[in-house]
Amino acid sequence: MSEPKLAELKQRLQVVFDLNMAASLLGWDQNTYMPPGGAEARARQIALLGQLAHERFTDEAVGHLLDDLRPYEASLPYDSDDASLIRVTRRDYERLVRVPATFVAEFNAHASRSYQAWTEARPANNFAGVRPMLEKTLDHSRQLADYFPGYSHIADPLIDFADYGMKAESVRALFAQLREQLVPLVQAITNQPPADDSCIRRHYPEDAQLRFGLDIIRQYGYDFTRGRQDKTHHPFMTKFSLGDIRITTRVKENDIGDALFSTLHEAGHAMYEMGIDPAYEGTPLANGTSAGVHESQSRLWENIVGRSRGFWEHFYPQLQAAFPGTLDDVSVDTFYRAINKVQKSLIRVDADEVTYNLHVMLRFDLELQLLEGTLAVRDLPEAWQDRYDHDLGLTAPDDRDGVLQDVHWYGGGIGGAFQGYTLGNILSAQYYEAALKAHPNIPSEIAQGKFDTLHGWLRDHIYRSGSKFTANELTERATGSPLRIEPYIAYLRAKYADLYAL
Amino acid sequence: MSEPKLAELKQRLQVVFDLNMAASLLGWDQNTYMPPGGAEARARQIALLGQLAHERFTDEAVGHLLDDLRPYEASLPYDSDDASLIRVTRRDYERLVRVPATFVAEFNAHASRSYQAWTEARPANNFAGVRPMLEKTLDHSRQLADYFPGYSHIADPLIDFADYGMKAESVRALFAQLREQLVPLVQAITNQPPADDSCIRRHYPEDAQLRFGLDIIRQYGYDFTRGRQDKTHHPFMTKFSLGDIRITTRVKENDIGDALFSTLHEAGHAMYEMGIDPAYEGTPLANGTSAGVHESQSRLWENIVGRSRGFWEHFYPQLQAAFPGTLDDVSVDTFYRAINKVQKSLIRVDADEVTYNLHVMLRFDLELQLLEGTLAVRDLPEAWQDRYDHDLGLTAPDDRDGVLQDVHWYGGGIGGAFQGYTLGNILSAQYYEAALKAHPNIPSEIAQGKFDTLHGWLRDHIYRSGSKFTANELTERATGSPLRIEPYIAYLRAKYADLYAL
Repeated sequence: MSEPKLAELKQRLQVVFDLNMAASLLGWDQNTYMPPGGAEARARQIALLGQLAHERFTDEAVGHLLDDLRPYEASLPYDSDDASLIRVTRRDYERLVRVPATFVAEFNAHASRSYQAWTEARPANNFAGVRPMLEKTLDHSRQLADYFPGYSHIADPLIDFADYGMKAESVRALFAQLREQLVPLVQAITNQPPADDSCIRRHYPEDAQLRFGLDIIRQYGYDFTRGRQDKTHHPFMTKFSLGDIRITTRVKENDIGDALFSTLHEAGHAMYEMGIDPAYEGTPLANGTSAGVHESQSRLWENIVGRSRGFWEHFYPQLQAAFPGTLDDVSVDTFYRAINKVQKSLIRVDADEVTYNLHVMLRFDLELQLLEGTLAVRDLPEAWQDRYDHDLGLTAPDDRDGVLQDVHWYGGGIGGAFQGYTLGNILSAQYYEAALKAHPNIPSEIAQGKFDTLHGWLRDHIYRSGSKFTANELTERATGSPLRIEPYIAYLRAKYADLYAL
Repeated sequence: MSEPKLAELKQRLQVVFDLNMAASLLGWDQNTYMPPGGAEARARQIALLGQLAHERFTDEAVGHLLDDLRPYEASLPYDSDDASLIRVTRRDYERLVRVPATFVAEFNAHASRSYQAWTEARPANNFAGVRPMLEKTLDHSRQLADYFPGYSHIADPLIDFADYGMKAESVRALFAQLREQLVPLVQAITNQPPADDSCIRRHYPEDAQLRFGLDIIRQYGYDFTRGRQDKTHHPFMTKFSLGDIRITTRVKENDIGDALFSTLHEAGHAMYEMGIDPAYEGTPLANGTSAGVHESQSRLWENIVGRSRGFWEHFYPQLQAAFPGTLDDVSVDTFYRAINKVQKSLIRVDADEVTYNLHVMLRFDLELQLLEGTLAVRDLPEAWQDRYDHDLGLTAPDDRDGVLQDVHWYGGGIGGAFQGYTLGNILSAQYYEAALKAHPNIPSEIAQGKFDTLHGWLRDHIYRSGSKFTANELTERATGSPLRIEPYIAYLRAKYADLYAL
C-alpha cells in the first residue's frame, strides 16, 4: 500500500516546510522590526533553520520514499495532486541532494550578514563597505552552480532554480528578441514631448498613502485575515503558511507612486500564494511555480490593472478625496499620463513599463559576466555605470542609485535573480490576454472597481495549482501556447500609442 | 583534553538555544502582528521548534559530554564560567531528559492554540469556550509533573522548573508567614479614607503615553539598540538572543498607569537579561536564574523605583509637560498618592503593592487544588469568585475580570506560574536593601533622575551571572543571607505608614 508511504512523505515535507517558514519569519522580522543588536544571532538562527530544513529534505529516507512511490505515481494521472506532489518533490530532491547542508548554512548566514551590511552601506554610499561581502557572495554563487556540473553556462543552474526550464542562452535569445522591439519603442516615445508628472511629487502624508493602498488591495481581493502590510527598506512579499502571507512597502511623502504601486505589486505576489489550493499546505506544491510566473502576477495587478485608464477613471476621485486639496487642479487624464510617463531613468523599481526591461537586461548581463569571471566585483560599479550610460544614456551621481540600488545581490546570491522580472512582464500580458478572451467584460469591470472576474480567472488558471505545473506547463494550459512576447509587445504598443500619439 | 569536548557541548547548546529563540520569535509575532489566518500553522511551527530543541538537548551525546566533562568541572572553582556551564547544563539535562520530545511538542502546540482561544474568549466573557482547552492543559500539567515521580506534592516539579529549590510546602509556609503581616496592614490602610486617584483616569493620548514610558526606560538603562517595545493584549518580555530583548505593553487612554507601569515592569525584566555576560550567549547560562529573581527586577524598577516619591519629584513636571493641561491642577503629592492607592480590587496586574500578593496567593492555592484534583476546571470560575470574596471581599461582575483575567493558565501550563510574583516582591526589597547598604546615595540619585549606581550594582550582583547561580546562591552572594521577608515588610511599612499616617 502506498498510502502510509505517502503519509510519511507528507509528514516529512511538512517539517521541512515549517522550518523554512520559521526562517522566513525570522527574515521578515529582520527587515521590519529587529533592533540592530539582534543581527548577528539572527543570521546564525536563519542559517540554522535553513540547514535543518535542508538536512531533513535531503534525508535519504525521503529518497527511499520517492523511489517506493514511483509505481503509485505512475498509476495516477499526471495532473493529480498526489502524482504532482511526488513528481515536484522528486525534482526538488534530486536538485537539493547535491548541495551539502553545511554549505546551505554558510550561504544563508552570509546572505543574512550581507543584507545587514547593505542596509548600512547603501545610505552611506559605501560600496567598498560591502565589496568583500559581495565577493564572498560571488564565490558562494559559483560554488553553488558547481554542484551541478555539466552546464553550458555557469549561470544555468542558478537560473533553473528560479525559472525552471530556462538557461542563460534561452534567456539571452528571448531578451535580444524583446530588445529589438523595445529600443525603437523607447526611442519613438522619448522623441515626443515628455509627460508632465509633477503632480506625482506633491506632498502626500504617509498615513493617507498607506490607507489608500490598503483600501485598493482589499478591493483586489488581498485577504487581510491572512496577511498584513509593514514597512521595510525594500518592499517584498513573504509567507509563513498559506494562512499568513504578508507584504511590505515603503513610503515617500513626496511621491504618491512609490508606496502605492509597490503595494499593488506585492499584493499581486501575495494573491498568487493566497490562491493556492489549501490542501497543498506544508508541501512543495504550496509555492508559486517560478520567479517569472510570480512576477507576472505582481506586474499584472500593478501595471496592467493598476496603471490602466479604466482603473483610474474609477479610483481617481477617491484618490483626490484621500488627499484633500492636493489634486484638485489635476485631471484624471493628466494623472494617468503622469503615472505612465516613459523616461530613461536610473532606478529599476521606479522605471516605467517600457524602459523597465532595459534595467533588467543589463543586470542579467552583469550577473553572467560576474559568474563567468569576465567581470570582477571591484569593477562592478564602473561596469554598472557604463551599461547605464550605454543602454539608457544616464550616469548615476553615486553608487546609492547605481550598483547599490537593488537588494538582490546583497541579500541572496548572484545569478538567477533578475531574469524573472522580464519573464514576468511578458507572461503578465499573455495571461491577461487569455483572461480577456474568456471574459471580454474584464476591462469594463475594472473601470467600475470590480476585480472578481479577473481574480477568479487567475485563481482557476494560475494560482490554485501552486507548483503542480512548471511555468511552461502552466502557461500552455492557461493560454494554449508557450511563452510568447507578442501579447506583451501588443499591450505596450496599444497603451503607449494612445498615450504618446505614436 | 577537555577543550574539544567543551567546545562540542557549547556548539550543541547553541543549536538548542537558537531553536528556542526562533520559537520565541514565532511566539512574539503571534502576540503582536500575526493575522488570524496564521494561527493554526503557527501553533504547529512553535511546537516543532520546541520539539527539535528538546530532542537536541536531550540527545544522549549531550549526556556523554557532560559525563566526560566531570573531571574538568571538578578541577575548576565552583563559580568559574566553565564549571557553572557544565553544572547548570547537567541540572537542566537531567530534568529534561525525563520528558519525551513528542510530549513537549504536544504541550507547546496545545498551549499556542489555547492562547489563541483565550484572546477570543476573554473579550467575549466565554469561559465555556476555553474550558475544554484548560482541561487538556491541566491533564498536560499533571502528566508533566508525573515524569518526576517521588514528589511530595504534584506541583513540586512544576514549581521547581520556575523557581529551582522551592516546593509547594515551602512556598505555602512562606506565603502564610507573609499573609500574617499583610492582612493587618491591608486592614489598617483600608480603615483610612481612600486616596483620591481620579487624576489617573483622565484622558491620556496613546502616543504621548508610549513616548513618556519609552523615555523613562531609556533613562533607566534599557538599551534600544538591543530591544524595542510593541503592543500586545498582555505585556511581556521576550528575547531572541542577548542582542535582541523586547518588551510589550498595552495602552488605556483613560488610565495613565496601565502602560507606564507595565513598561517599567517589563523593562526591569529586560534589563536583567541585557545585563547578562555576553560570553554566555547561546548557553543555558544566558537566562535569568529563576522566575522569582526575574520578577524581583521587574518589581524593583516598577515599584521600588518607579512608584517612589523621589522618582516623581523628578519626573512629575515632565509628565505634566507630556500631557499639556491635563495635570495642571494636580500636585505631585496627590499624584504620588494616587499611583500608590491601596484598595481591594479585582485585577492582579492593576493591584497596589500591598494587596498584590493576596491575588498571587489565591491563584497559587487554586493551582495546587487543580493539580491535586480537589478542584475541577468546571468549578474553577466559582472557586475563583469564592476566593476573591473571602480574601478581598469582592466579586467580579463576570469571568473577563475573574477567572479569564490572566493569560498564564491559557497560554502555558497550570502549576508554577504564580509563586514567582510574590517571591519577586520579597526579593526586590532584599536586593534593594543590599544596594542601599553599598550605596546610600541611591535614593537621592533617583530623585535626580539618575539610575546608574543602582543599575550598576544590580548588573554586578544580579544580572551579570545569568543562571550561573541558583536563586538561593545568588541571594546569599548578593545580600549575605537567604531570602527573608523582613526587608519587604519593612519597605511596605515605611512607605505606607508615611502615605496613610498609620
